[in-house]
Amino acid sequence: MNARRFRRLVTFAVCLTWSLAIPGVRANEDVLRQTAKPGQWAIQTGNYANSRFSALDQITTANAHALRVAWTFSTGLLRGHEGGPLVIGDVMYVHTPFPNIVYALDLKDPGRILWKYEPRQDASVMSVLCCDAVNRGPAYAEGMLFLAQADTTVIALDARTGQVRWKAVNGDPAVGETNTATVLPVKDKIIVGNAGSDFGVRGHVTAYDMKTGRRLWRAYSNGPDADMLVDPERTTTLGKPVGKDSSIRSWNGDQWKTGGGSPWGWFSYDPELNLFYYGTANPGSWNPVQRAGPDGKPIDQRWTASVFARDADTGVARWVYQFTPFDQWDYDGVNEMILAPVEVEGRKRDALVHFSRSGIAYTLDRATGDLLAAAKFDPSVNWTSGVVMDRSRSDFGRPTVVPERSPFLNGEDTLTKGVCPANLGSKDQQPAAHSPLTNLFYVPTNHICMDIEPFRVTYVAGQLFLGASFSGYPAPDSHGGTGNFIAWDAAKGEVAWSKAEPFFVWSGALTTAGGVVCYGTLEGYLKCLDQKDGRELYRFKTPSGIVGNVATYMHDGKQYLVVYSGVGGLAGVGLSAGLTSGGSNLEANTTSALRNYTNLGGTVTVFSLP
Amino acid sequence: MNARRFRRLVTFAVCLTWSLAIPGVRANEDVLRQTAKPGQWAIQTGNYANSRFSALDQITTANAHALRVAWTFSTGLLRGHEGGPLVIGDVMYVHTPFPNIVYALDLKDPGRILWKYEPRQDASVMSVLCCDAVNRGPAYAEGMLFLAQADTTVIALDARTGQVRWKAVNGDPAVGETNTATVLPVKDKIIVGNAGSDFGVRGHVTAYDMKTGRRLWRAYSNGPDADMLVDPERTTTLGKPVGKDSSIRSWNGDQWKTGGGSPWGWFSYDPELNLFYYGTANPGSWNPVQRAGPDGKPIDQRWTASVFARDADTGVARWVYQFTPFDQWDYDGVNEMILAPVEVEGRKRDALVHFSRSGIAYTLDRATGDLLAAAKFDPSVNWTSGVVMDRSRSDFGRPTVVPERSPFLNGEDTLTKGVCPANLGSKDQQPAAHSPLTNLFYVPTNHICMDIEPFRVTYVAGQLFLGASFSGYPAPDSHGGTGNFIAWDAAKGEVAWSKAEPFFVWSGALTTAGGVVCYGTLEGYLKCLDQKDGRELYRFKTPSGIVGNVATYMHDGKQYLVVYSGVGGLAGVGLSAGLTSGGSNLEANTTSALRNYTNLGGTVTVFSLP
Repeated sequence: MNARRFRRLVTFAVCLTWSLAIPGVRANEDVLRQTAKPGQWAIQTGNYANSRFSALDQITTANAHALRVAWTFSTGLLRGHEGGPLVIGDVMYVHTPFPNIVYALDLKDPGRILWKYEPRQDASVMSVLCCDAVNRGPAYAEGMLFLAQADTTVIALDARTGQVRWKAVNGDPAVGETNTATVLPVKDKIIVGNAGSDFGVRGHVTAYDMKTGRRLWRAYSNGPDADMLVDPERTTTLGKPVGKDSSIRSWNGDQWKTGGGSPWGWFSYDPELNLFYYGTANPGSWNPVQRAGPDGKPIDQRWTASVFARDADTGVARWVYQFTPFDQWDYDGVNEMILAPVEVEGRKRDALVHFSRSGIAYTLDRATGDLLAAAKFDPSVNWTSGVVMDRSRSDFGRPTVVPERSPFLNGEDTLTKGVCPANLGSKDQQPAAHSPLTNLFYVPTNHICMDIEPFRVTYVAGQLFLGASFSGYPAPDSHGGTGNFIAWDAAKGEVAWSKAEPFFVWSGALTTAGGVVCYGTLEGYLKCLDQKDGRELYRFKTPSGIVGNVATYMHDGKQYLVVYSGVGGLAGVGLSAGLTSGGSNLEANTTSALRNYTNLGGTVTVFSLP
Repeated sequence: MNARRFRRLVTFAVCLTWSLAIPGVRANEDVLRQTAKPGQWAIQTGNYANSRFSALDQITTANAHALRVAWTFSTGLLRGHEGGPLVIGDVMYVHTPFPNIVYALDLKDPGRILWKYEPRQDASVMSVLCCDAVNRGPAYAEGMLFLAQADTTVIALDARTGQVRWKAVNGDPAVGETNTATVLPVKDKIIVGNAGSDFGVRGHVTAYDMKTGRRLWRAYSNGPDADMLVDPERTTTLGKPVGKDSSIRSWNGDQWKTGGGSPWGWFSYDPELNLFYYGTANPGSWNPVQRAGPDGKPIDQRWTASVFARDADTGVARWVYQFTPFDQWDYDGVNEMILAPVEVEGRKRDALVHFSRSGIAYTLDRATGDLLAAAKFDPSVNWTSGVVMDRSRSDFGRPTVVPERSPFLNGEDTLTKGVCPANLGSKDQQPAAHSPLTNLFYVPTNHICMDIEPFRVTYVAGQLFLGASFSGYPAPDSHGGTGNFIAWDAAKGEVAWSKAEPFFVWSGALTTAGGVVCYGTLEGYLKCLDQKDGRELYRFKTPSGIVGNVATYMHDGKQYLVVYSGVGGLAGVGLSAGLTSGGSNLEANTTSALRNYTNLGGTVTVFSLP
């Protein structure tokens, strides 16, 4: 790329960020102001679009090889460190896994602790966290930090002092309800999800008043229309009204009450449309036979494994789309929804792009929820022959299930072998990034398959409600590893380039106006590549495996990269929870190799040019 | 310094290392071979001389500013990380605090774990470790790694595979006997000390057959001559035979049986003299009134707070010298004995230099134990007016105690105020370094005072046998901090330069032929200074506070520095053991500030030039 074209692209990128960030008509939207400053990192996703693109351009493809570690900071905790730090002005905010400590660090005296907030949570919540003790971090707005603790308590901290401004109890860990996700500060509200689908927890998002913590509304994923804040006539799916009782009609009896669909992933927001977007988790239990309709046939279990677009003021759903009706494989829909322009059939669309657990990349119109494209982003995906894209068909928008890979068709207590991807998906919580320089999406992926066997399970509040056993292994067409970092061309529906990784890539990517894309690896490397072709520009071995997300910020006129290391999460829970090697599940199998490369240990590593 | 003079000094330095390392007459002395290779770091002290000087010279005063982090490795453990890694060939050996894991890391694929050894120790030993769960690391010889575990078990590991070659039980944690120190591999033996003086454990060193682990001999610090391997006629102190029953004559009744003096520090060895050197700890209990003679007057409690020179084959003591007779302040004598040439009164002597807990720097003739010099290296020292150096006096070699600072004279249950240094000394286990380039010693020091009050205590096996309460605080003439890193001119008996530090300097120093001296700080900086004048050349904030020792090695033709961070040890035990801030003891007071700068977390950080 020549210099002029590069500058033009950067200008475009900054304008794009700007256009997403500063609508002309709204006031009092601090997140828009804070995320529009390219030197900051105010919310976990970098911006409302979840593009994870930064307009900072000091670090470039030409100089990234000279990156070096500027300073480091131990969080004092082991277990998996997901999410990443925030940077506002001269302060970096660092959070930890359970017990969800927050540190404010002085960037003027790197690593000095300005304040520390350590919540007192009942340690018993650890027993109902499905997949390590992770937390994906706070969000900043209006001089406060907002954090959802493991025990579901939502906390507003004074960003200057760390003092608690307000607390709200969002759920009940006694029935398996927890939280691991970040929150969405939008306008005068904090929007919060929940976790616990694997415990039969019914999913919901809840809005709290940003200033007082007063609960404003709650919208469930499943159940009666009123509970879901769904308007049967105005809320649409694929352009048509969802109709009355769209959810409870798709469940056998009252199974929706323990039906999962918890939104434990990321939130995005379009200020022009005033819609926020998020996905819902798998249905509970995992045993599809037990969830079949009264006639023994599949029913959809709406709205699990779906994406909701909701009005940020009222919470009412504008549209909803189910990625995986009648999920049989634990294919949650919670992965991030990236708001970016995508050219579809020659026309630039205001799209929402979603890389699903199921291995399918979806492109939707984010105003209407219309399905524009769906294609496999992981070549090993074999549970479906693809999503029906023929609009004339009644099953438009539904994936066609390959019968051999259907635990439902194979039946209870029968092993369904060779399903790709495995339960933790071709991609999980690790967020992808988009770059306006290349119009490519950069996706940390897993490359794994599983054998799965459903069995009958009885719901007991606060107990795992899985109803399936499974074991995972590298995909047969694998390169010998279980990860790929890919560049996805959503316009073409194909992989532009792919970089093989020995382990799941469980770290979120960052793109910058310097033309680099950076991510972490499970054995601990921070890597920066050229967005154009995946050429590796820089790598550094951090103390522990990386399951956190790369961020960037500016301080004193200098651009920095920052990432947590601290192996764990679902990808590293074998290490994190001290499981021994061997055994039948994927985590343990993977761990048996991973433990040759890294140890637990939470650290912040900050990089800069000399 | 001009280039020619610099090269001459380096040549001198290498020759010095060589002359100490390769005696003409001995065979099968693998440690001499391994430590003579400047690219390796085969024993914790770098070499037998304990000089911590490396002949590597790529990193110099001219380029040290360009140092950067090459790679990092989390140990997976919190608590204090004392000692440092070893490097043999392509492998780095990393150890941890309790449970004393050892990792072998592949330097060809930095951070990859070749093997991991994790001993199974009864966790109850943690309750009899006086000062955090530290371990000062293994030593390498003959293709094996030798490690003294917390529970006193001595382990020989195959350095290639991590398999246990032999084990020996050296003591009994049930009576408070532990180990935190490294071991000394010498010729065909492994020499091991013990810890537990504060539990009334009687000190000893024990020799094991390097190949089989068979116990060969044991030499106690206190008690009958036969137990101590002392020859009343041939073992000397200050040039005179110690005489019959030199120890038991200096105790009231059988108090020597619970009399402490455990050697938990470092070992040095002179291959020409075939003598090894080590210090002994404080007497038990700390209450001097309870330890007075039958006439109520002070008695010496030999040979606590002393240095022993013993024959490496037989263990028999050649000479012994007591630094602090009738110790009243917990002034252990365990700090390292550095073997280096020192000019005394115009004559170059083969000296042993010791920076004592008590704040006095001693220079002795290492062949005879003759006292050549003794001077305060910490300006705040006020418990003594100095060591009597008049050879005509009967108290030659004894410190003169200032009555106001004597808990013995002030009596039980009476506060003796303003004693400098405090119990953890002007210097503790953190080893100093010597440089032949400057003939200076580089000493990490503490700068603290205490109030102390002795009280009567009854010995109960396995219980703390302190008999004193104390509280510490920064020295009154302090710079506002509690640490200094000093350059000591042993020929002149004065400080050449001093660099103030906000906290105790609890990290061991490294000197190199490049003219730099490096050490870590309690808030986590690695710092490298110019040996000549203390000018700071480089600093880097590692993830956690540094209580480990800096080492250097060469790999693929490139010089590296390496240090553990992982705050803890006696200096950081408040943080490490989770004590709250405030309170009356020094650790907690210091911690209340330290916790604003760092967190727990064990990490190896490796540095190199670009």
